[in-house]
Amino acid sequence: MITLDEARVMVAEARAKGRALGLKPLSVCVLDAGGHLLAFEREDGASPGRFEIARGKAYGAVMTGLPGSAQKARAEEQGYFMAALNGVYDGRLVPVPGGVLVLKDGAVVGAVGVTGDTSDNDAAAAVAGIAAAGYAALA
Amino acid sequence: MITLDEARVMVAEARAKGRALGLKPLSVCVLDAGGHLLAFEREDGASPGRFEIARGKAYGAVMTGLPGSAQKARAEEQGYFMAALNGVYDGRLVPVPGGVLVLKDGAVVGAVGVTGDTSDNDAAAAVAGIAAAGYAALA
Amino acid sequence: MITLDEARVMVAEARAKGRALGLKPLSVCVLDAGGHLLAFEREDGASPGRFEIARGKAYGAVMTGLPGSAQKARAEEQGYFMAALNGVYDGRLVPVPGGVLVLKDGAVVGAVGVTGDTSDNDAAAAVAGIAAAGYAALA
Amino acid sequence: MITLDEARVMVAEARAKGRALGLKPLSVCVLDAGGHLLAFEREDGASPGRFEIARGKAYGAVMTGLPGSAQKARAEEQGYFMAALNGVYDGRLVPVPGGVLVLKDGAVVGAVGVTGDTSDNDAAAAVAGIAAAGYAALA
Repeated sequence: MITLDEARVMVAEARAKGRALGLKPLSVCVLDAGGHLLAFEREDGASPGRFEIARGKAYGAVMTGLPGSAQKARAEEQGYFMAALNGVYDGRLVPVPGGVLVLKDGAVVGAVGVTGDTSDNDAAAAVAGIAAAGYAALA
Repeated sequence: MITLDEARVMVAEARAKGRALGLKPLSVCVLDAGGHLLAFEREDGASPGRFEIARGKAYGAVMTGLPGSAQKARAEEQGYFMAALNGVYDGRLVPVPGGVLVLKDGAVVGAVGVTGDTSDNDAAAAVAGIAAAGYAALA
Repeated sequence: MITLDEARVMVAEARAKGRALGLKPLSVCVLDAGGHLLAFEREDGASPGRFEIARGKAYGAVMTGLPGSAQKARAEEQGYFMAALNGVYDGRLVPVPGGVLVLKDGAVVGAVGVTGDTSDNDAAAAVAGIAAAGYAALA
Repeated sequence: MITLDEARVMVAEARAKGRALGLKPLSVCVLDAGGHLLAFEREDGASPGRFEIARGKAYGAVMTGLPGSAQKARAEEQGYFMAALNGVYDGRLVPVPGGVLVLKDGAVVGAVGVTGDTSDNDAAAAVAGIAAAGYAALA
């Protein structure tokens, strides 16, 4: 179970990675193992709808057990399947990199979702945050 | 009309097939002739959102009268049509194998939905469960 | 974390309690700590929409941390508040007895939802199922 | 316009107030002038559905321009009106204290939503957070 203190480290260090890489303003969320929000921050200059994107990336990862990169691959080879998954999850899934699973002893305990820069840079920031909190990341 | 005892056999034997084939953790649901839930089980290690996928496979089969394989073929040749069907069914349809019709004397009396491994393996598990309960299966 | 084997015990023993008390056909669901479905069974003779009620009772308990009896009390003294909660949870909350929290070492690890007889009898069946699986129940 | 640094102060100081008063675990969100999420934290031990409640309190305040206490008064004297407002806002409004407007020079620039303890204690924590960030609060 990710504690709030750990979630705050994930958010802070994902943001620090963004600043170190010179990325655009990031929005970062941390979800628990049930896909429910633990923490979120949206940097100044980000567009107002960024929470929904950040959560969508992380939510899809938790609910399907697939990180954003795997969801993207599936969406590109079988688009109607990912569209259908989005239907059963009430449209809350964003299947691109930046949705990164948080693992402990091989089990999924949550996910971090980042949006703001390219999807791959978003994922790199999420991985940095997860590692800083002492968990394994699957991007 | 599928009884609960029969539905429980379907779930148990679909799961047994999964174990016999060495599949990933399966989630199995049984719907009645109206598309309503009779029984469901999610094996340990499956991601939390598996019920929605299992039900989506079975729901689409019951509501359209087409098993998952036929829905998949239609989605690949006429994607907008399956997308439109998903609209009228409130996004609850997952058009891939693993949604298997349950037939008695040629009439649809329900469906089994399985998710967790490849779509084809999911379908094989569903067929095994249906057969064990003494019904015909259309995958 | 409730295992599937434990969830199956909860369902079986809640149903057994219903039979011992001569209750109407019961529908029983078990949700995990994130409100996601682990197991469900609907007894023969129950109306087709029982899954949604059983899940609604358990879902409201998990998401708010309040068992059905406490939700009912709140609904009766401040109806607009429970109505508003139902709005933010997409209408998935049923605030009456029969939604029973599953506790381990004082922490909520899931909930059991039962529907079919009176709300109080439904709750009694849920409690029996939870106790049989070795957990504490808060009804 | 509330900056992220200011929003973080609001969250931290609302939580500090909760700890100083010995309140139950709090969940705190800050919304901007458009009702969109800037920051959120859920304390350990809170139920998983607390984000939706915290946001609902703040969202209703921003969208109607009425703090939670005024929404509650209206709900108690004219329930169908608040129910109708909830309809037009997609069920996202929770009309009780704990949704507090953030004002600058008399204009609404956002809202803080707090949930976890009694509604009045939630509101007191929100006010403390807003004041610590140098804004006026209307609870």
